[in-house]
Amino acid sequence: MPKVGIVGTTTWGTTLGVIIARRGIDVSIWARTEAEAATLEAARENARFLPGVRFPEALSVSASPSEAFESADLVLIAVPSRTFRANVRRVRRALPPNAIVVSATKGIETGTGKRMSEVLADELPSGMHRGICALSGPNLSREIIGSKPASTVIASADVDAACTAQRITNSNLFRVYTNEDIVGVEFGGALKNIIALAAGVCDGLNYGDNAKAAIITRGLAEIGRLAEAAGANPLTLAGLAGMGDLIATCSSSLSRNQYFGRRLALGDSAETIRASMDNVAEGVDTVAGAITVANRLGIEMPIAQTMHKIIFESVPLERAVQELMERAPRPE
Amino acid sequence: MPKVGIVGTTTWGTTLGVIIARRGIDVSIWARTEAEAATLEAARENARFLPGVRFPEALSVSASPSEAFESADLVLIAVPSRTFRANVRRVRRALPPNAIVVSATKGIETGTGKRMSEVLADELPSGMHRGICALSGPNLSREIIGSKPASTVIASADVDAACTAQRITNSNLFRVYTNEDIVGVEFGGALKNIIALAAGVCDGLNYGDNAKAAIITRGLAEIGRLAEAAGANPLTLAGLAGMGDLIATCSSSLSRNQYFGRRLALGDSAETIRASMDNVAEGVDTVAGAITVANRLGIEMPIAQTMHKIIFESVPLERAVQELMERAPRPE
Repeated sequence: MPKVGIVGTTTWGTTLGVIIARRGIDVSIWARTEAEAATLEAARENARFLPGVRFPEALSVSASPSEAFESADLVLIAVPSRTFRANVRRVRRALPPNAIVVSATKGIETGTGKRMSEVLADELPSGMHRGICALSGPNLSREIIGSKPASTVIASADVDAACTAQRITNSNLFRVYTNEDIVGVEFGGALKNIIALAAGVCDGLNYGDNAKAAIITRGLAEIGRLAEAAGANPLTLAGLAGMGDLIATCSSSLSRNQYFGRRLALGDSAETIRASMDNVAEGVDTVAGAITVANRLGIEMPIAQTMHKIIFESVPLERAVQELMERAPRPE
Repeated sequence: MPKVGIVGTTTWGTTLGVIIARRGIDVSIWARTEAEAATLEAARENARFLPGVRFPEALSVSASPSEAFESADLVLIAVPSRTFRANVRRVRRALPPNAIVVSATKGIETGTGKRMSEVLADELPSGMHRGICALSGPNLSREIIGSKPASTVIASADVDAACTAQRITNSNLFRVYTNEDIVGVEFGGALKNIIALAAGVCDGLNYGDNAKAAIITRGLAEIGRLAEAAGANPLTLAGLAGMGDLIATCSSSLSRNQYFGRRLALGDSAETIRASMDNVAEGVDTVAGAITVANRLGIEMPIAQTMHKIIFESVPLERAVQELMERAPRPE
């Protein structure tokens, strides 16, 4: 029987832990403090992020990395991208050298513009690089925890690692596909949050479903341009981890990034919105990282650039949106 | 000043007529009977399909083809696909030989499996073939009539015809792009209705946004396979007339095809649903036409085949859906 360790008592980390443990697989979630571990263990639920969802028996919580990751075959990391590197540093000495390490975080590091698997490669000993994977797809947590059917992709340059991770995480209700194109899978998951911000702006301006569909379509095109320039297979972006994730995020009322965009359109500042949210809207950090990568590779990303202007450059929203709409070229 | 004729007092035909006439361009809608023309002219609105939307002054309605299409530069046809050929036969003698004829109907003819532009080529004199166009995109009528921003594509093998049609129909709120790939544009618009039926089934079964996003993603893949085999450019399907239209239709609560799918999932028979609807759910007819084309070209269309089984082969919905879900291949 495999053993799974999880970094992150977030909504997504807890969801992954619970659905795997429901199948009788031992899962241990690492909490950052003894107090948090004790609270979660006493309540046997994550009252902050997943209230009402009881921990299965096979799930435990520990604040000790060595206890949480002892003999783990698979370690899933599900923390915000801005704390990803720091979290990896805190746990890396406790990870078994043969463990497969999977980033379940969708984001790009601000400043470096690195994908999470690149951060893992920076921080893990070289002997563990082969087992680095990324998990990404249309995966709204609250639906998955509610046992609605979903699918996802585990990607790795190492097919064996991806297949092992697939065997451990796959179930009838959570169908896991594998893909060798980790670059495409990670860019799809990260960049879609930027388009979700823009879709939220569109909703906030009450532009309707025709305009939103156009933004999503143009959004996937610019995500694909960047990913392809970075070495991704364009077909990956047309799949579950690209188009699929983009559509789920942009259609769901549960999306934090869309919520953030809607509030921007209603006139709230990014600082105000950020301060009012318990969970992180990953798209906001990802905008900065995406622009770093786009500039480095010389790729135009009109929607990401528009969101960057609104959030980081104090350009009035109406003007930025107007410029985007007038920018559209003549032939399709 | 150009003159526009419209075939079809449908929601879409009236919408196109109203938004063009609002810009001061003379528009004449052809109604099939004197009584209908008189009713529409007396009310100066289409009370059945677009209640509350006043006809602009530049819009008139006539039951006489020769009056409606006299000196028309552009003729837009917006009738259900099942009556498209019969309507063209009724008006063709009245069409000016230099008129550009645009199909704004999204569908495939049952039996022949022909696209609407192919039906036009069958029925119009060869001198008019060069000007045949198709208009298709993410175009929910009620949003467009409500002056929300939208975009669409006019496609033709004849670039000049498409550009002329674009000049007449384009406005700030209804942005018209051109495309030379009429095959891709027509298949995108027609086949997306099948995926909308399936998305409605998914909603009716309460499967959630993750599963729906997966269906839409796989749906675009199978639409693209068929269109490409028929000669379309795959990039067309990734654009507004493919992915864009698919997303708008599948996210809108206004979609008749999704409504049809939801009712199927709730246990109603196709006959019952059809009898209860005033407007046509184009996807139902298109399923049959699409399977004709898919069989001819040897293309697999798992979602279309599933909808065909449910609607035309009396396969129980649960079994058909189960088979589709278990069918998914292992690598992405």
